[in-house]
Formats: sequence, C-alpha cells, structure tokens
Amino acid sequence: MKGNFAKCGSVLITGASRGLGLQMVKQLLATPERPQKIIATVRNPAAAEELQKLAKAHPDVHIVTLDISNETSVNAASQAVEAIVGANGLNCLINNAAIGMSSDLDSVTRDVMMKTYESNTVSPLFVTKALLPLLRRAAAEGSGMSIQRAAVVNVSSLLGSVQLNWGEGASFKSYAYRASKSALNMVTRCLAADLEADGILCVALHPGWVRTDMGGPMAPLSPEESISSVLSVIAGLKEEHHGGYVDYTGKNLPW
Amino acid sequence: MKGNFAKCGSVLITGASRGLGLQMVKQLLATPERPQKIIATVRNPAAAEELQKLAKAHPDVHIVTLDISNETSVNAASQAVEAIVGANGLNCLINNAAIGMSSDLDSVTRDVMMKTYESNTVSPLFVTKALLPLLRRAAAEGSGMSIQRAAVVNVSSLLGSVQLNWGEGASFKSYAYRASKSALNMVTRCLAADLEADGILCVALHPGWVRTDMGGPMAPLSPEESISSVLSVIAGLKEEHHGGYVDYTGKNLPW
Repeated sequence: MKGNFAKCGSVLITGASRGLGLQMVKQLLATPERPQKIIATVRNPAAAEELQKLAKAHPDVHIVTLDISNETSVNAASQAVEAIVGANGLNCLINNAAIGMSSDLDSVTRDVMMKTYESNTVSPLFVTKALLPLLRRAAAEGSGMSIQRAAVVNVSSLLGSVQLNWGEGASFKSYAYRASKSALNMVTRCLAADLEADGILCVALHPGWVRTDMGGPMAPLSPEESISSVLSVIAGLKEEHHGGYVDYTGKNLPW
Repeated sequence: MKGNFAKCGSVLITGASRGLGLQMVKQLLATPERPQKIIATVRNPAAAEELQKLAKAHPDVHIVTLDISNETSVNAASQAVEAIVGANGLNCLINNAAIGMSSDLDSVTRDVMMKTYESNTVSPLFVTKALLPLLRRAAAEGSGMSIQRAAVVNVSSLLGSVQLNWGEGASFKSYAYRASKSALNMVTRCLAADLEADGILCVALHPGWVRTDMGGPMAPLSPEESISSVLSVIAGLKEEHHGGYVDYTGKNLPW
C-alpha cells in the first residue's frame, strides 16, 4: 500500500453484504493501519451473516441498514451514520452497491435500463447528497485532498468507458450496465466540480474484472487481489486524482 | 452542404413539433435535393400547428404520432412508418426528441434524473430497436456507410462529454441532462458496434448551443444556423464517422 487508512477516521462502504463490498471490510480489518470506524451498509442486515460475524468480532465495524434506492432509507441511514461519526464527520464514502445485468440488443428492456440506472447512477448521487453534511464536516478541517480529509469514491467500471467500447473492448454486451456506468462517471465529474471548493475529493474507480457473483467465474482477478489494489489506490488518493477515472492499479482510464 | 439528401429515400425525425426537430423539417423542405419522404413524429399532432401547415403544403411530409416513452405508441408508430416507407425501408433515423431540465446539486431530484434518462437515453434506444427491421431493410442493398444506405443519428450534446465537464466546461450545471447524454453516447457506441455488420451507420451529434425553448435566449446559434450545419454533417456522414461523436461543424468531440 502506497498510503494507508491510519489517519482516516471513518469509511462507509455501501453494498457490504457480499462481493467487493464485503471484501473491502474484511481486508480493512486485516490491516493494522485501518480507519477507526468502518461503516458497512447493507439492505438487509439479517441476511448478511458473514458481515454480522465480522462486526461481532470487531467493534470498529458498524452495520447500518441502507436500501440505496429508497429515499426514506437513505435519510434514516444518514442519521445513523451521524450518530456513529459525530463531530468528526465522515471521511470516506465508497459507493460500491450496484447491480449488474447482462443485456444485449435483443434482450434489453426499458425496465432493465431504468432499474440499472436507478441503482448504479441515481442512488450513488443521492447517497452522496444525504451524507454531504457529514463529508463537509470532515473536510472543514485540514487542507489538500485525501481520504484523511474527505473523499467520495464511486465504484465504476471499465465497461463505463465510451471510448474503450469498440473493437475487442465492445465484446461484452450490456446496454443497461454500460450506460449506467458512463452516466455514473458523468455524475462523479459533476460532483468533483461542485465539491472541489469544499475540499472533498471525488473519483470514479474501476476495481477490475473480479470473480464475484457479478463478475462470474471467468474473471481474471480474485476478490482479494482486486481489493488489495483498490484499497491501496484509495489510500493513496491525492488532488491529482480528483475528478478522474482510475483503475485498481491507479492507471487513468479514458472516458 | 458537403453531401445532400437527394439519394436518401426517407428520413424520420422525432420531436418535430418545435425546436430543432421542426427546423430540420423546414430546412429539408427548403432544399431541392431533399429526401423523398420526410417522416416527422410528434407526441400530439393536434398541437403541432406549424408542422401541420408544412405537411399540407408538402405531400412528402408525413406526420406520425409518437410518444417515445410509451412502448405501445412506439410499436404503433413503427407500423405507420412501415406503411409509409414500404419495401425500401427507412434510410435515416434522427433521434432528436429530448427533454432538458436544469438541475444543480441542490435542486436535482431522483424523479428528474429518472425522467430525463427515460426520455433522452432509454427512449432513443427503443425507438431505434422498433425501427431496426426497416433500417435493416434499407441497408440490405448497397455498400459502404451513409444516409443513402441506413443511419441512426442520435442528437446528443456537448454537455454529455465527461472529459469536457471540467473547469469552464463545467459551468453549466445539470446532473440529469449531462448524465442522460453521456449515457446516450454510450448507447450510440453500443449500437454502432452491434449494427456495423448490417451496414447501419450510428453516430452521436452535438447540434450546438441553439436559441430554442431548451437552449434559451443566450445561446450563440440561431436554429437556422445550427440546422444548416447539422444537415450538412448528416448528409456527409461516412464510415469514418461510424461510432463517433461529432459536433455541428463535423469536428470530433472527446467522450
């Protein structure tokens, strides 16, 4: 790891019941230089058995109920988060929760397009809006840009790159997922422009193609490999990354 | 005009009751080298008085009722279009209908995000899907790529460029509109990859910032100026534009 989470007071990870979100919680817990508070949000805590076990063993893990598509749930969660982080505010928001449905030209439906956009684009924006007072609170002290101050990390995808969706890069077909992630990249860039004056770093991050339920068994990266690199990139985020689109190795991607 | 519409059998323009769509119909009618059939779709023909007048004076203008967000309406419209174009198919589809709502970080709502995406991103995709048999029919004969064969022109916007949404380029705030247009760019690129084998040219086109109801009175271009250039670019579309993102002067834009 280039940087570390030692001076990052709090991290919030959405979609932490499984896949990359759960892996982030696990690997943060495995490092001694971890944030003081790890807030793991899940839609249904009762079904998040593995996360529940981790939270029992580690009092620095806080489980918060959050359905990112539901405004009432988002507002309740932001109040719960405020109770956890208090006057220090929230240092790092990782918008990880997303859905992935394959949809080629024949199979794509209006409903799949709309639901994927709601989960992958609209909800991260409104989770960020709800937590903005807490991110601003964390950013109020300090200078420069980093997760030690305040940051919004939107988990995007290489599949959201319009430029790379060509030739071999266009072989994976998913109108709904691709459109939602290119729109998320735009939302990230809008947020970056708007939150720069507050000192809140905003970045879109491609975690690699990973063997999760979403990525499938053919993916080249294990969750361990992906998240080890992802956490290293997040820990090392600086002003130069603000408004950018980087992959798990820290490399810039074309929009 | 670099090219012209003389050998383009049919053009369909969505959202032709006003603004740029109406202007396209007007200016196509003003040139002697125009397509044989100009299909102008509007949500409510009864309210499209100016278009009705044009259609009365010019039998080559066909008004078709189309609410792009309504699947039943889209299917009915594609049957009406088939009756108009017959065995020749449809040569050029211009997905122009769109909504534009300003929405900054404070004012943006989930509802505005969803409705804008439905109109500006999802509907052009499903209008294209519904008309695909007619576009393929037109593309079946001929070689190369052009509007003389078959083309899908998605009217996008400079505001859909993620890369240009920075510094001064980020001064116009609209989360909903920007995200919908970057997603439309992605959809255009997906369509380009999928329809290349059929010989159907697909392109995203920025018409400039124009003094319409949407563009407002401060815009630098008159509808005449914009559409004169836009029609010239469309008439001259070639294989090199396929999958691209060009402005009304024909210049490539960064995604």
